[in-house]
Amino acid sequence: MLSEVTLDDIRPIAIGAGILGTGGGGNPYLGSLHLESIMREKGSQPLIDPLTMDDDALVCVAGNIGAPTVSIEKLPEGTEMYRAFRLLEQHINRKFDAIVIAEIGGANSMQPLIAGLQAGIPVVDSDSMGRAFPEIQMSSFLFGTDATVTPFAMVDAADNAAVIPTAISDVWSEKIARNIAVSMGARAGLVSTIMTGAQVKEAGIHYTMTLAHHLGQQVIEAQQQKSDVPTVVADTLDGNVLFRGKITDVNRRTTKGFARGGVRMESFAGNDILEIEFQNEFLIAKINDEIAVTTPDLICIVTEDEGEPVTTEVLRYGTRVAVIAVPAPEQLKTTAALNVVGPKAFGYDVEFNPLSGGRIGYLPN
Amino acid sequence: MLSEVTLDDIRPIAIGAGILGTGGGGNPYLGSLHLESIMREKGSQPLIDPLTMDDDALVCVAGNIGAPTVSIEKLPEGTEMYRAFRLLEQHINRKFDAIVIAEIGGANSMQPLIAGLQAGIPVVDSDSMGRAFPEIQMSSFLFGTDATVTPFAMVDAADNAAVIPTAISDVWSEKIARNIAVSMGARAGLVSTIMTGAQVKEAGIHYTMTLAHHLGQQVIEAQQQKSDVPTVVADTLDGNVLFRGKITDVNRRTTKGFARGGVRMESFAGNDILEIEFQNEFLIAKINDEIAVTTPDLICIVTEDEGEPVTTEVLRYGTRVAVIAVPAPEQLKTTAALNVVGPKAFGYDVEFNPLSGGRIGYLPN
Repeated sequence: MLSEVTLDDIRPIAIGAGILGTGGGGNPYLGSLHLESIMREKGSQPLIDPLTMDDDALVCVAGNIGAPTVSIEKLPEGTEMYRAFRLLEQHINRKFDAIVIAEIGGANSMQPLIAGLQAGIPVVDSDSMGRAFPEIQMSSFLFGTDATVTPFAMVDAADNAAVIPTAISDVWSEKIARNIAVSMGARAGLVSTIMTGAQVKEAGIHYTMTLAHHLGQQVIEAQQQKSDVPTVVADTLDGNVLFRGKITDVNRRTTKGFARGGVRMESFAGNDILEIEFQNEFLIAKINDEIAVTTPDLICIVTEDEGEPVTTEVLRYGTRVAVIAVPAPEQLKTTAALNVVGPKAFGYDVEFNPLSGGRIGYLPN
Repeated sequence: MLSEVTLDDIRPIAIGAGILGTGGGGNPYLGSLHLESIMREKGSQPLIDPLTMDDDALVCVAGNIGAPTVSIEKLPEGTEMYRAFRLLEQHINRKFDAIVIAEIGGANSMQPLIAGLQAGIPVVDSDSMGRAFPEIQMSSFLFGTDATVTPFAMVDAADNAAVIPTAISDVWSEKIARNIAVSMGARAGLVSTIMTGAQVKEAGIHYTMTLAHHLGQQVIEAQQQKSDVPTVVADTLDGNVLFRGKITDVNRRTTKGFARGGVRMESFAGNDILEIEFQNEFLIAKINDEIAVTTPDLICIVTEDEGEPVTTEVLRYGTRVAVIAVPAPEQLKTTAALNVVGPKAFGYDVEFNPLSGGRIGYLPN
C-alpha cells in the first residue's frame, strides 16, 4: 500500500477516486487543487495500514456532505473538515488518533487528507464505501459494526457549526445532517462515526486510497501509450466496458441538498440507448430499457478518449463517454448492506442482480 | 407581580398568553394540560423579578420552535425543553441560575415553567417579545443587547438532539434551527441566548407572565359577569376592538417549518371585510383592503362571546370572533427592533404605522 500521499500522487488519486466516485463525492479536479496547495505548505500526508493499526486507536470518519453540483460553484473556505474535527474532539473531550475516509470517491478522497495535514495526524487507508454514496447511513462502518453516526459535527465555509450528540437512528442522522447542509448552502464538512481501530479493521473497505492511486496511474500510463483507456480502467477494476456513446440528454436539478436526475446517451452507431439515473451518484443503468447495472455495483462514466472521470456535475450534451460497470466490494453485498445501499433503498422496485466478481478494497497487485 | 405560578394560575395564564400570542406560540390549551400534570407532581413554580435579580446570574432563553399547526397533532414527549437545557449546560460546562421565557404567547409561556420545574430552578417574569413572533432572531434580547442566539441546543420528542455552537448571525441561527426543526417534525424544544441577569434587566419585556395572568383573570371575571369580553380584553391591554364578525375563509398550509396563510372575515352586518395574513402569528390586518394594523403591534383574535383566544391552528369557517388591536411594547418599536420585527422584515412593502399607546411589559395595576 501507499505509505504516504505526496504531491506527485495527487493527480493519479484524483483520476482514480474520480472514477470510483460513480459520479459523486465532489469534483476531483477542485479537490486536487486544494490538496496541492495545502501539501505545498505542510508536506506529504502519512497513511496508516488498517490491518496493522492499533486496535485501541480512536478514529473518526470524515467527508463532505452536499450536492456535487454545488461543489463547483461554492468553493470551500479550506478548513471546514478540520474545524468539524476539532469541534467533535471538543464535544467528546478526547483526541482522535487518526482520520478515516468516509468515501473514496471524488474529492471526498482528498478532503480527509487535507484535514489530516491540518490536524497533524495520519489518515487510514480504508473507507466505508469503496465508491461514493449520497447518504451518510450508507457506510460499511454502520451496517458492519455497532458504531453510529452520532455524535457528529458539521462546519461550513463561514462560522456556522453544528454538533448532533444523539439521533434516533443513522437514517435520522442523515435527515438532520442533510437539512443542516441545506442551511449551509448544500456544502459542509462532516466528521462522524467515532470508532476504534478494531472496528475499522472489521468493517472498512481497505486500501482504497492505494487502489485509487493505482487506478489513476494505470489511466495516465494508458493515456501516454495511446491504449484504449476505458478498457484499462475496466480491467484494473475487474469490471467491463458496458457502453460507448455520446450524451444526448441531461436532466439535473439540485434539490433538498442533492443533485438528482438522469443522463441519456446513444451508442456511436446510434442503435442503442443507455440511461442512468442519479442521486449525486449513478444508481441504475438501463440499456434499451433493460436494467443492466444497479447500486451497489459501480456505474462509472469516463471520457471515451482519455478515460478521465465524468462526474454528475459536469455531465453535458455531446460528451463522448464510456460507461464501465464494476462489481461492488463484498462488504456492500451482504443482506444488511443491501438494505441500506441496494436498489430498494433508493426507491427502485428492482432486485439487486450482482455483476460477477468484486475485489475493490483489496490490495492491488 | 406573581411570585409563583400555582395550579390555579394555569387557566388565567393560558387565556392571557393565548391572546398575547397573536395566533402563535403553540396551543395554550394543550400547554396548560401539560403544565398541570407536571405541577401536580412537582408543585408550584417560583418566578423571579427581572428588575431585582442578580446581575451576574447566568440565564438562558427557552421556547419551542415549529409550526403551531403541528403542535396540536404531534404531542410533546414532555422533557424536550428540559433536555435541551441540560444539553446546553453540558456544552458550556456551566449551570444556569434561571430560565427566561422566549415568548409569552401561547404554550410558549408554559413550557419554560415546565422546564424550570424539571430542572428545579426559577423562571424570570420577563420575555423577549411581549407576544409571539415566528422567528428566533425576533427577540428584544438580541436587538437590545450584544447577546447572540448561539450557542443553542434543540431536542425533539425522540432522541434527536443538536447543539449549534456558532453561526454567522442570528438570522443564520434561525435558518439552521428551522431546518433542524423540520427534521424534528416541525416541533422541538430550543434553549438559546445565554445572558446575564443584567442583560435581562436591560432588554427584557418585563412582567409579561404577570400580565398574561392578569389578562386571563379579567377575561374569566368578565365571562362570569356576562360582560362584553372583547372590550374587557382591549381595555386591559390598552388596545381597541377593531372588528367583530364571522370567519368566512381560511387558507392555511404548513410549509418549511411554519404555518402560513390568511384568514378572512365579514362583519356581522356583512358590509365590511377584514383580512389577516399570518406566519405562525397574525402579521398584518386589512379592513376593506386598507391596512389597519401591522406587526409589531398585536393583532389578537378572540371568540366574540367568551373572549377566548383563537390561535392560527384552530381558525375555521364560521367562528364568530372579535379582532383586537394592541400597541406593541416600546422595545419592539425602536429602529433596531423594527428592522427585525417590522412589516418589512416579513416582506411587506409597508411602513409601520404604530397604534397609539403601548404598555405591555409594564406591571399591571
